[in-house]
Amino acid sequence: MQAKTPEQSRTVLTDMVLPGETNPLNNLFGGELLARMDRAASIAARRHSRRIVVTASVNHVAFSRAVPLGSVVTVEAKVSRAFKTSMEVFIDVWIEDRESGDKAKANEGIYTFVAVDETGRPIAVPEIQPETKLEKERYDAALRRKQLTLLLSGKMKPNEATELKAFFE
Amino acid sequence: MQAKTPEQSRTVLTDMVLPGETNPLNNLFGGELLARMDRAASIAARRHSRRIVVTASVNHVAFSRAVPLGSVVTVEAKVSRAFKTSMEVFIDVWIEDRESGDKAKANEGIYTFVAVDETGRPIAVPEIQPETKLEKERYDAALRRKQLTLLLSGKMKPNEATELKAFFE
Amino acid sequence: MQAKTPEQSRTVLTDMVLPGETNPLNNLFGGELLARMDRAASIAARRHSRRIVVTASVNHVAFSRAVPLGSVVTVEAKVSRAFKTSMEVFIDVWIEDRESGDKAKANEGIYTFVAVDETGRPIAVPEIQPETKLEKERYDAALRRKQLTLLLSGKMKPNEATELKAFFE
Amino acid sequence: MQAKTPEQSRTVLTDMVLPGETNPLNNLFGGELLARMDRAASIAARRHSRRIVVTASVNHVAFSRAVPLGSVVTVEAKVSRAFKTSMEVFIDVWIEDRESGDKAKANEGIYTFVAVDETGRPIAVPEIQPETKLEKERYDAALRRKQLTLLLSGKMKPNEATELKAFFE
Amino acid sequence: MQAKTPEQSRTVLTDMVLPGETNPLNNLFGGELLARMDRAASIAARRHSRRIVVTASVNHVAFSRAVPLGSVVTVEAKVSRAFKTSMEVFIDVWIEDRESGDKAKANEGIYTFVAVDETGRPIAVPEIQPETKLEKERYDAALRRKQLTLLLSGKMKPNEATELKAFFE
Amino acid sequence: MQAKTPEQSRTVLTDMVLPGETNPLNNLFGGELLARMDRAASIAARRHSRRIVVTASVNHVAFSRAVPLGSVVTVEAKVSRAFKTSMEVFIDVWIEDRESGDKAKANEGIYTFVAVDETGRPIAVPEIQPETKLEKERYDAALRRKQLTLLLSGKMKPNEATELKAFFE
Repeated sequence: MQAKTPEQSRTVLTDMVLPGETNPLNNLFGGELLARMDRAASIAARRHSRRIVVTASVNHVAFSRAVPLGSVVTVEAKVSRAFKTSMEVFIDVWIEDRESGDKAKANEGIYTFVAVDETGRPIAVPEIQPETKLEKERYDAALRRKQLTLLLSGKMKPNEATELKAFFE
Repeated sequence: MQAKTPEQSRTVLTDMVLPGETNPLNNLFGGELLARMDRAASIAARRHSRRIVVTASVNHVAFSRAVPLGSVVTVEAKVSRAFKTSMEVFIDVWIEDRESGDKAKANEGIYTFVAVDETGRPIAVPEIQPETKLEKERYDAALRRKQLTLLLSGKMKPNEATELKAFFE
Repeated sequence: MQAKTPEQSRTVLTDMVLPGETNPLNNLFGGELLARMDRAASIAARRHSRRIVVTASVNHVAFSRAVPLGSVVTVEAKVSRAFKTSMEVFIDVWIEDRESGDKAKANEGIYTFVAVDETGRPIAVPEIQPETKLEKERYDAALRRKQLTLLLSGKMKPNEATELKAFFE
Repeated sequence: MQAKTPEQSRTVLTDMVLPGETNPLNNLFGGELLARMDRAASIAARRHSRRIVVTASVNHVAFSRAVPLGSVVTVEAKVSRAFKTSMEVFIDVWIEDRESGDKAKANEGIYTFVAVDETGRPIAVPEIQPETKLEKERYDAALRRKQLTLLLSGKMKPNEATELKAFFE
Repeated sequence: MQAKTPEQSRTVLTDMVLPGETNPLNNLFGGELLARMDRAASIAARRHSRRIVVTASVNHVAFSRAVPLGSVVTVEAKVSRAFKTSMEVFIDVWIEDRESGDKAKANEGIYTFVAVDETGRPIAVPEIQPETKLEKERYDAALRRKQLTLLLSGKMKPNEATELKAFFE
Repeated sequence: MQAKTPEQSRTVLTDMVLPGETNPLNNLFGGELLARMDRAASIAARRHSRRIVVTASVNHVAFSRAVPLGSVVTVEAKVSRAFKTSMEVFIDVWIEDRESGDKAKANEGIYTFVAVDETGRPIAVPEIQPETKLEKERYDAALRRKQLTLLLSGKMKPNEATELKAFFE
């Protein structure tokens, strides 16, 4: 399989915040945004692998800014690193001001997907070739995050997590 | 107000077809797609005008290809022409094949939106400057469509619809 | 197949405007109303043809009045003309004032549906026999609209659209 | 206030069974149908009273026939009896066969609504004048049902429920 | 089949009232609550029978207190009595005050479910052994309710409803 | 403020997997489960703090087992540790086999919420007193996770993350 670039999996989901998706402060519910991010990220993983994909884990999502009712929200997802059968997807969420048109970062998240065949068994995916500076940084950090996940789930021992250990020294 | 280009209002809504949105043939319901197109088009109109916008009419939507359950659907909307307080938005809908990645045109639609202030009264919007060949064609056709709408609703007399008459000669 | 009357396909969908379906002005979203109209119209087309039906096009929808949150909305659909395998459906939308009970026309739309068999192939539908004055007017106008659609999509030449040409003279 | 007839509150909600509303046997969920019946019945109560109305109780709903995915379901609600500030609404649910067009009774339910002012306090409603034989039967039975409800909730003593006692003798 | 206790079928569904589920007074729609109660009750009936279950009837639901937007609602369902192939389920609904944490009873309902096999045919369910005082009261009352249902639907004659007659003497 | 136990915030949301929430393999969408977990966890955080709460971050969610259509899913959330104005909530997700009644762990997640006042400003929350062995383990691990979050977001330097460093030695 030929390697692909993150740009080839880039997926944009622009949509509004509807009244049925808001909390008592009139902002978008965290859970609703998690679901939108999952849909955009799974399309990115599918575009990279051209396979059915299933969510394997959410590595981190930081909600840095509330998303008010009526906002236009842009969810942008790109595969940041491909492993044997899994893909890490980085998701950036922006809201834009109606009057000025200015965009502000609202959230950021990292999800992992596994490519599967029709019976649900994991199947190999193409490698990825990061191009921009940001894509390269995220590609490098992805390995540390994978070690951390394996470590926290007990599937790797602390002394094997070489990339991660180096980070603390 | 400074004129804008169609590209400045370009809005992309990529999303999947979920099982709750399908008809007995397992394809996306026409009505669901009309609602998605309306949301993307209204964001495009809002980006052009930076105002609250309301749907004024649907001029035409042609469903040329069924959209099966599980498809990735890309709805792309751009303002095609601006009038005094209204904007015509052209919407192209694509589906992509999971295995080959090929894109096919599924639908095409034309909606009109009016910009309004907080009290709901119409308010002026910037002019538009088409750039590409397709944008120019759609810009020209928009005037004929507007005359047709006025004509069919009885707000213009047949002999005043000069652009439209020329089309039949 | 025996011809039917528009009344035989008459379909009424009365429902409320729920808070999850409204825009920032607290009125029903255009897209939501398009979806409701599609559901009512497809039932009318199904009642006329007794077949599975799919939306082929939206010919025109004019939103003449906002539909506020909490309104009772009545969507009434009737087949206005039947062609070989397709049906034009006319949809009238009314809202009623809670206190006075008065009804006001909010919208009007024209959709086209195609009857299909279980494999999705077009199949013949019964003819229609308009009865009332309004049904007869809509029946006549349907042919002009069909010519217009064929014309705009390039499937008919301007000089073949005899009904439509006559309209401009 | 002038008395009204049940026909004046008649409300019809015709809609399809969508895939997102079905149980593992591919039939409409009981809960979804209860919600549709509540919406139609509350519109009928509102048409009778021209007030805001709230659901006070569900007196009985019998599910006599499964409603398969893709069915066209007609929910028809009419006020059957008005008390001081409350209204009993009778709801009949029909499904129709796509090929033959035959209608079959699927469900039947009785709900009670209370009319309230803007602050939520109960407010008087017009009396009702049943016209047809069925309307008169339901009008008479409504009093027995009201006594039964008061009895079961401890708000009436068994020996005061004269209408109901007579039923057992 | 071994008898079970009501506790073994106990099902708790705690969830919020979202903005898309409210009426013009900003309280939870009756119909939405009926649907939530149906889902919780059907899980209780399934836990008792370990079968597919379908809603057979709603015997009574009393809405004694409005449920405001943003409330935390706890729906608790337990099988109150098992008959040959059917189960009566009692549902208690509580709302809790955010600041004090106090719980208040909002609603109470009684639904009946039938256990069915994969083809939809009724199938026997285990007996039930009530334990607490409240469970025993509801168990006894269930028989009177069943007679009442049979009576009202004409499947039992008034003089056969011995349990119910005794209630009025 | 008096300290509370994790048990006092325990929140159970038992519900079914409906057809509208499933992916092409007929399993519950990852995004839908993330939203359900967010709703249950936010109720737990609200019960601990008796304040309005907003999602601050998702620290980790591992999807270890697919959740098929028709499953009964139990989401159980408890506050695992309280910081000054934030709370870490641990969420366990179980599915149960209809025939055997056996429960299996499907997912596990960790979310962080912040308590806010009516204007959206962070406000202090009670401390927590873990009781069981599992609650104590999760309480201890919460501090390491908090350091990790601060570290990854650049708000803490690697050499300050003492709890975390010890974990690698």
